[in-house]
Amino acid sequence: MIIQLDKNSTTQQRNHLDSVLLHNRIKATEVITKDNNYLVAVLTSDIDIRTIGNLPGVQDVHRVTDGYKLVSRKWKVNPTEIELGDNVTISEKDFTIIAGPCSIESEEQIHKIVQHLVKNNIKIMRGGVYKPRSSPYAFRGLGLEGLKLFHSICKSNGIKIITEVMQVSQIDEMAEYVDIFQVGARNAQNFNLLDALGRIDKPVMLKRGISGTIDELLQSAEYVFSAGNEKIILCERGIRTFENSYRNTFDINAIPILKEKSHLPVIADPSHGIGLRNHVPKIALAAMAAGADGIITEIHYEPEKAFSDGQQTLNFEEFEKLLKQIKSIKKVLY
Amino acid sequence: MIIQLDKNSTTQQRNHLDSVLLHNRIKATEVITKDNNYLVAVLTSDIDIRTIGNLPGVQDVHRVTDGYKLVSRKWKVNPTEIELGDNVTISEKDFTIIAGPCSIESEEQIHKIVQHLVKNNIKIMRGGVYKPRSSPYAFRGLGLEGLKLFHSICKSNGIKIITEVMQVSQIDEMAEYVDIFQVGARNAQNFNLLDALGRIDKPVMLKRGISGTIDELLQSAEYVFSAGNEKIILCERGIRTFENSYRNTFDINAIPILKEKSHLPVIADPSHGIGLRNHVPKIALAAMAAGADGIITEIHYEPEKAFSDGQQTLNFEEFEKLLKQIKSIKKVLY
Amino acid sequence: MIIQLDKNSTTQQRNHLDSVLLHNRIKATEVITKDNNYLVAVLTSDIDIRTIGNLPGVQDVHRVTDGYKLVSRKWKVNPTEIELGDNVTISEKDFTIIAGPCSIESEEQIHKIVQHLVKNNIKIMRGGVYKPRSSPYAFRGLGLEGLKLFHSICKSNGIKIITEVMQVSQIDEMAEYVDIFQVGARNAQNFNLLDALGRIDKPVMLKRGISGTIDELLQSAEYVFSAGNEKIILCERGIRTFENSYRNTFDINAIPILKEKSHLPVIADPSHGIGLRNHVPKIALAAMAAGADGIITEIHYEPEKAFSDGQQTLNFEEFEKLLKQIKSIKKVLY
Amino acid sequence: MIIQLDKNSTTQQRNHLDSVLLHNRIKATEVITKDNNYLVAVLTSDIDIRTIGNLPGVQDVHRVTDGYKLVSRKWKVNPTEIELGDNVTISEKDFTIIAGPCSIESEEQIHKIVQHLVKNNIKIMRGGVYKPRSSPYAFRGLGLEGLKLFHSICKSNGIKIITEVMQVSQIDEMAEYVDIFQVGARNAQNFNLLDALGRIDKPVMLKRGISGTIDELLQSAEYVFSAGNEKIILCERGIRTFENSYRNTFDINAIPILKEKSHLPVIADPSHGIGLRNHVPKIALAAMAAGADGIITEIHYEPEKAFSDGQQTLNFEEFEKLLKQIKSIKKVLY
Repeated sequence: MIIQLDKNSTTQQRNHLDSVLLHNRIKATEVITKDNNYLVAVLTSDIDIRTIGNLPGVQDVHRVTDGYKLVSRKWKVNPTEIELGDNVTISEKDFTIIAGPCSIESEEQIHKIVQHLVKNNIKIMRGGVYKPRSSPYAFRGLGLEGLKLFHSICKSNGIKIITEVMQVSQIDEMAEYVDIFQVGARNAQNFNLLDALGRIDKPVMLKRGISGTIDELLQSAEYVFSAGNEKIILCERGIRTFENSYRNTFDINAIPILKEKSHLPVIADPSHGIGLRNHVPKIALAAMAAGADGIITEIHYEPEKAFSDGQQTLNFEEFEKLLKQIKSIKKVLY
Repeated sequence: MIIQLDKNSTTQQRNHLDSVLLHNRIKATEVITKDNNYLVAVLTSDIDIRTIGNLPGVQDVHRVTDGYKLVSRKWKVNPTEIELGDNVTISEKDFTIIAGPCSIESEEQIHKIVQHLVKNNIKIMRGGVYKPRSSPYAFRGLGLEGLKLFHSICKSNGIKIITEVMQVSQIDEMAEYVDIFQVGARNAQNFNLLDALGRIDKPVMLKRGISGTIDELLQSAEYVFSAGNEKIILCERGIRTFENSYRNTFDINAIPILKEKSHLPVIADPSHGIGLRNHVPKIALAAMAAGADGIITEIHYEPEKAFSDGQQTLNFEEFEKLLKQIKSIKKVLY
Repeated sequence: MIIQLDKNSTTQQRNHLDSVLLHNRIKATEVITKDNNYLVAVLTSDIDIRTIGNLPGVQDVHRVTDGYKLVSRKWKVNPTEIELGDNVTISEKDFTIIAGPCSIESEEQIHKIVQHLVKNNIKIMRGGVYKPRSSPYAFRGLGLEGLKLFHSICKSNGIKIITEVMQVSQIDEMAEYVDIFQVGARNAQNFNLLDALGRIDKPVMLKRGISGTIDELLQSAEYVFSAGNEKIILCERGIRTFENSYRNTFDINAIPILKEKSHLPVIADPSHGIGLRNHVPKIALAAMAAGADGIITEIHYEPEKAFSDGQQTLNFEEFEKLLKQIKSIKKVLY
Repeated sequence: MIIQLDKNSTTQQRNHLDSVLLHNRIKATEVITKDNNYLVAVLTSDIDIRTIGNLPGVQDVHRVTDGYKLVSRKWKVNPTEIELGDNVTISEKDFTIIAGPCSIESEEQIHKIVQHLVKNNIKIMRGGVYKPRSSPYAFRGLGLEGLKLFHSICKSNGIKIITEVMQVSQIDEMAEYVDIFQVGARNAQNFNLLDALGRIDKPVMLKRGISGTIDELLQSAEYVFSAGNEKIILCERGIRTFENSYRNTFDINAIPILKEKSHLPVIADPSHGIGLRNHVPKIALAAMAAGADGIITEIHYEPEKAFSDGQQTLNFEEFEKLLKQIKSIKKVLY
């Protein structure tokens, strides 16, 4: 059950509500976000929720039978829109394109890619400065200094930044330079990180775990929301299966199912989703046709020389070709 | 290595070729299809294949390093077209739509669905008369009598038939009434059935195994081709993974990869691919965007009352809506 | 619901029973095996089964809620014993060892391996004469002539034979030379083959499908039983997962679960279960500790030269070492 | 390549070595653990490693072709032994038993379980105080206060403690009260946590990721080792597959393969490995037979009332029965 509280309810009203809950043995978690106050409870007894809905200070009340509550579409039918400022929004109303290199490598690299984004009217750039790598001996990213450089060049060109955060202690120092925090597949159930990202006021994009279920992804989103942050974006990036003629199995089914189960926007990552450069555009278009709200894709002017993920990175020409295809299909779908 | 033989090569030429192969210790399998003769060999030594290509009676010679040979795109760049007669063709040139019920149930049912297909200009109807069921106590289909009924109604309405064959002994009795033989996911590696279907002159659609790899699907196609039948259609229908918020995981990646690796047409089955009626159209469109040559989808005038698979079957209204969407996207993609 | 019928019930009693079932709208499948008669019904209404149990001609009646019925342990608590003649039995009472080559290759090969089995008092030999191979160009076995040779040498040495049958048409011609028919992983849901094996009076060993669930394995066994053959052995041989540092993932959990759910004996195949020769003995011992009723393992005097599966085949020395370990643990477990 | 340095090598020797490496364009990572100094390099050129092995100040040099280096058995054939003090050791020489509740719940609970361990001569107790839970609304453990209580009772009874650490910031405050830090399956690739645990001098037990490969588990161990901590224990706890008649698929194959690939001890977790209380003992014995160095298992005096994981927790009677079986088999195997 989700109880939406009036923002300007009185202490007296709240005390009364608490006593009604206590009387009904309902233990509720209080969730305070930037714009709303909620009480979330896992119902164990049979209660007529209208009893609570009619109380003064209560705006609305909803029965949500899913394991996750606040991120469920059962209580919030309208899709969530993520405002990034300067009229950049991630929502159902437009198809968002996020592009950039796997790793931030150098000032020159950022410049070249930013120019390409500007040229093609792309408003959000991806780029890792903290890189989770299977091997401790691999390149782990340029870190905070890289982020500052990334930020200064993007800012002066009107580009928003999404980049991965790997641990709680990085959040504060990164926050100033980041527009969207990305949680990587390997941290999809790093609950402390999710909790901490719930306590800030910045959009968070959650990548599905390497073998995470759709329910687990929504429960991870519930962590962020229940800790106080409503600005969440879900990302399908492929799952691990027995098939190995490509990198991951892009779960196209997850797109319509996430859109049905949750009010949060859903972004597709075709680059990791198939992991093969020549097929990335096909998967991007498929995700679009399946109802994704956008894509995040890896691009580089020289994929062969990229520090990481070159085999799944589009070059500029391939990327522009994809943009044209997206534009054509958009006319039909939107 | 694939050696394409001249159809009108002489015995003398052939004897000479055989002696060259013997001399080079190359053991080749002879493959005779309706239109072509081939010799297929797994090369173990380093031979300059031009030596063979230049021999009289040899039309062409190709080095194919894949495990499968004849179905590989490495030697046959042009996509295979499957002619069903009466100008019905499955190929890259158009997006083929196959529709019909999971099971053939009654004369009335066939009539109603055929009428709907005619109305919408759909040329190929699916419908099972032999049903593979997990439980021995479930409905197993109407059998040969059902097929005859199915055939007579379709024929008088200009509709082609695709239906599943489950064992070798059924092939001959079914052949007269069938336009495309379908091999189901559970029989994807029933090699005797594949061999037998390779010895007839009818198109065969191979469904990918429940957890079959892309390579295994192509090797199964190689069984059919190498036994003498070039008319093969591949079908992606979802694979088994850990995710259980839907029936199967539709492997969208498989579409572009199959198209790249093989010259055979690729059909998508969104009904089994997600198994949830309200999401089937999204997966159909996604498959189209990813490059599939067509779809096979389950429809029924009353899905709730279908003998099997009702939960993934579109009703007529939903199907017509999907057809409109396909038409719009086709204008952009084709 | 399973209704066990008196073998010598009268036609009158049976007619009365049928009318009671009809009255209660219960549709039952009649199952006649060599020793017993059953009626199996999927109950859809609430009926007091004692009403049926008390009828004359009815020996006993059991409610079985599983999808599979006759193979369930819910009605038959005592483990099934498979008698092969000459005091060779597969049952819970002893740990059965089945060994032999992947493929039957030659008279000399059979002789050498039979001698080794005789020396070590092993009573059942495996060996494929029809080999299911992913590629149509691979060695497919010596066929019926190989089986006859295999049979004649084994028979004169008191060794029983288990070998794979791949299609219905092979059953009759093979039956004379086979003591246990094996259904391979790729045919685990070849329902026609299962039906046909249900109509003969020979033990059948069912390998779990490559990605078959435990329930599907039991449903496949139900096919054989419900067609009339109670002599079924289940075989766990590893499943397909994302891990690829070995061939298959041996599902050790399946052993106790199959033993709990079914009264049928459970044999483990450590050779396919891990696919790496040096680790096969460890998996064999683990299966034993987990409660398997026996193992089937690949052995050869020169695994390096075996026609197939050499990398997972034990040589004679390794096999004898394993036998000693099994003997020691048997003292503790049995 | 791993270069083992003399502990008392001179600066001059080290400078010379560095210049040789530089000359050969070898970039090496320095690893300083409590007892040893190493240089680890991923070789990209062909160098005769004896050139380096013969340099003064170098104790030994090893070529290791695996992706992981320091945890590989290729350079360290002798198994690693983990000393916990008071003669408690985890090693190949004995079969270690770790037992305790899923979650630490109360003083009374700790007392009762500690008494049971003392009675049965078990030296290491498990118990979670920080619980990773899929849902943010579930019980998350008693935290640091619970750990202090846990520690004080165990210490006075001579019992060592293993408990899960979920984030970097917890390490310092927990260290005083913990004998082995456990990294949970969901944090198996939380590289920052692994790095941080590599900088302390306490044993670390790494659980395999929910769908982690064997290689990824070893790479995670490499993170800990390369950051300076050699005291690592590997734990197989089941993987995620399509099968859902139990909780996880215990990967019995992983036991012998981990033992072959790495010198680190391998512990099995049969409780999570199958997730069904009545089958946990079978899987424990199977793991033992497959070569595990010990087990970690969940026990509780009243599993039905445990705060978490009750369905996979043994009661005292079941646990003692298992201990007897282990003892019997130990006589045969050790």
